[in-house]
Amino acid sequence: MTVHNFGPGPAVLPDSVKLEITEAISDFHGTGIGILEISHRSKHFEQVITLAEERIRRLLLIPSEYAVMFCHGGATMQFSMVPLNLGQGYQELPEYLLSGVWAVKAFEEAQRLVGANENGSSSADKFRSLPQILPVREGAPYLHYTSNNTIYGTQWWPQPQAAVPLVCDASSDLFSRPLDITTHAAVYSCAQKNFGCAGLTIAIVRRDLIERAPSNLPVLLAYRTYEKHQSLYNTPATFPIYVAERYLAWIEEQGGVTEMERRSRSRADIVYRCIDENPIYQPYAASAYRSLMNATFTLPTPECEKQFLNKAESAGLVGLKGHKLLGGIRASLYNALSQEAVVNLVTFMTDFAKRWDS
Amino acid sequence: MTVHNFGPGPAVLPDSVKLEITEAISDFHGTGIGILEISHRSKHFEQVITLAEERIRRLLLIPSEYAVMFCHGGATMQFSMVPLNLGQGYQELPEYLLSGVWAVKAFEEAQRLVGANENGSSSADKFRSLPQILPVREGAPYLHYTSNNTIYGTQWWPQPQAAVPLVCDASSDLFSRPLDITTHAAVYSCAQKNFGCAGLTIAIVRRDLIERAPSNLPVLLAYRTYEKHQSLYNTPATFPIYVAERYLAWIEEQGGVTEMERRSRSRADIVYRCIDENPIYQPYAASAYRSLMNATFTLPTPECEKQFLNKAESAGLVGLKGHKLLGGIRASLYNALSQEAVVNLVTFMTDFAKRWDS
Repeated sequence: MTVHNFGPGPAVLPDSVKLEITEAISDFHGTGIGILEISHRSKHFEQVITLAEERIRRLLLIPSEYAVMFCHGGATMQFSMVPLNLGQGYQELPEYLLSGVWAVKAFEEAQRLVGANENGSSSADKFRSLPQILPVREGAPYLHYTSNNTIYGTQWWPQPQAAVPLVCDASSDLFSRPLDITTHAAVYSCAQKNFGCAGLTIAIVRRDLIERAPSNLPVLLAYRTYEKHQSLYNTPATFPIYVAERYLAWIEEQGGVTEMERRSRSRADIVYRCIDENPIYQPYAASAYRSLMNATFTLPTPECEKQFLNKAESAGLVGLKGHKLLGGIRASLYNALSQEAVVNLVTFMTDFAKRWDS
Repeated sequence: MTVHNFGPGPAVLPDSVKLEITEAISDFHGTGIGILEISHRSKHFEQVITLAEERIRRLLLIPSEYAVMFCHGGATMQFSMVPLNLGQGYQELPEYLLSGVWAVKAFEEAQRLVGANENGSSSADKFRSLPQILPVREGAPYLHYTSNNTIYGTQWWPQPQAAVPLVCDASSDLFSRPLDITTHAAVYSCAQKNFGCAGLTIAIVRRDLIERAPSNLPVLLAYRTYEKHQSLYNTPATFPIYVAERYLAWIEEQGGVTEMERRSRSRADIVYRCIDENPIYQPYAASAYRSLMNATFTLPTPECEKQFLNKAESAGLVGLKGHKLLGGIRASLYNALSQEAVVNLVTFMTDFAKRWDS
């Protein structure tokens, strides 16, 4: 039985990428040594990291005024790095849009480290919607938002507009659709959802702002360190960078982020249609804010949800359990998820709904 | 032709571990999904991280008073974390033994962030030897040392003694020999030399000292965060942790760190004997301080070294180029390096020396 992985991340990879990775572990590019064992200072690895950066720049049309950096520590490290590097020494504090748990965590870390103001919040309706954007105080360095809220299943369409540069935590939708980098001070994303495996986070940051950052930061918390050394100040996560390079190559071959968006939309349409046609499934996110990445819904009772998850697992549909804070069901529909997986899911859901009704 | 990898890290892995990894990428423990795609919150991954910690504790006989943590950012991040967590709020500044480039980097980062004192240094003889340990100021929180100096090929035998707790950067020899944890405030090591691949660093830290650390640190720079959440506060580097777990299992099967030391000694003896018997090879490290991990030497001329490296590569012996700061030749002899690799190396070296003489 083919198992389909709807987990929220670490998430499914393209089959062809997995095959390439497997080969590279025993012998990387005919070197006789594997990708896990190869020096980060070798010309072979330099090629990998250069290619990865080139692909990122091509896919997102990133101007040369922005640095592309391969960082340590996941999006959570960016929660600290963004305010430390980009939020100090301005007339006003940075502002944050609170659209879910991760957005709040980013905000609280900024508050704790350098101070920050709440701009808008959708906590009043338990993050079923997205916040209204309020006018940003003049002199604030940036407005931070979370482009896709994995736990609640909401997503910014279109991207926010503000009179100050934006900072985007795009951890669960980068490379799943086009993004206008030029309105941003910074965009960051961990790799394990739409373009790689855990252990890598990329940060795209305006170079002039990197220069303005304080000089007293811990060395690996300064964007300057990564920019100056092309992310090779110390040993980077070589393998996760390699996996991302191969995944990004796959995205380019498939048609880039426009094609990823078309597929995301097609996957999400199929799932939401099934939710809307079967009253047993109660969508969590308000329909105007639905995410193409994570479809969230509940069933009439916890017992019913348990049955749903058990039967789904028996049918080879795994990773569907909602986040522990919210419960319910969550189907994550990232770049590498196949059409077959989605068809199997809605077939199962339709069937499950019928049996439950009868 | 079999290629043997003498690189300083990322370094050679045991063949059996590579085979297990390859299988796990396509299907992890019969789950139908691969190790790269599996949730860090799944029971399957929880087993991996629990097993990894248990193996670390067994191999190094770590008492329960110490936390074992899986950290982000390599040893370089520890250069910041150690002083920030363990070096503030004491009567005196932490002290550092300067035995090479990495030791100096750790010292300079501590100086910059919280202040630090030099204890002893071997810079006067270009780090061919190890520093004299001077009496540590009473009230200093710790004395930091680098147990093995990868670039110069020196290693502490026996481990330093001091009237204050030690902090050890064991990045290039942890799990290659026994280590008395109980005299330490902290021991840390990246994984890519003797027990895994790049992207993972473990920190073993006394719990009472973690509690004393300031509360205003960036969230992932506080040991407290890792300790409290069993290294699962955010998504850890799941795959590097899995690789380490398998590598550590291999070390246990082979007989643990005592057996690793026996093998290290055997490998190093063979290489140093060859160096000492052939005057063409000038050892870099003073003989009393020789490392079992990295044998460093020079040849009469740069041209001769170039020929050596080219011919070695043609013979399938790679990664032998010395660090760019030092030049010369460096043979790294980590846990997974086979006896065959060492025999091939000395056969080549003996042959090369003969031809050069004649």
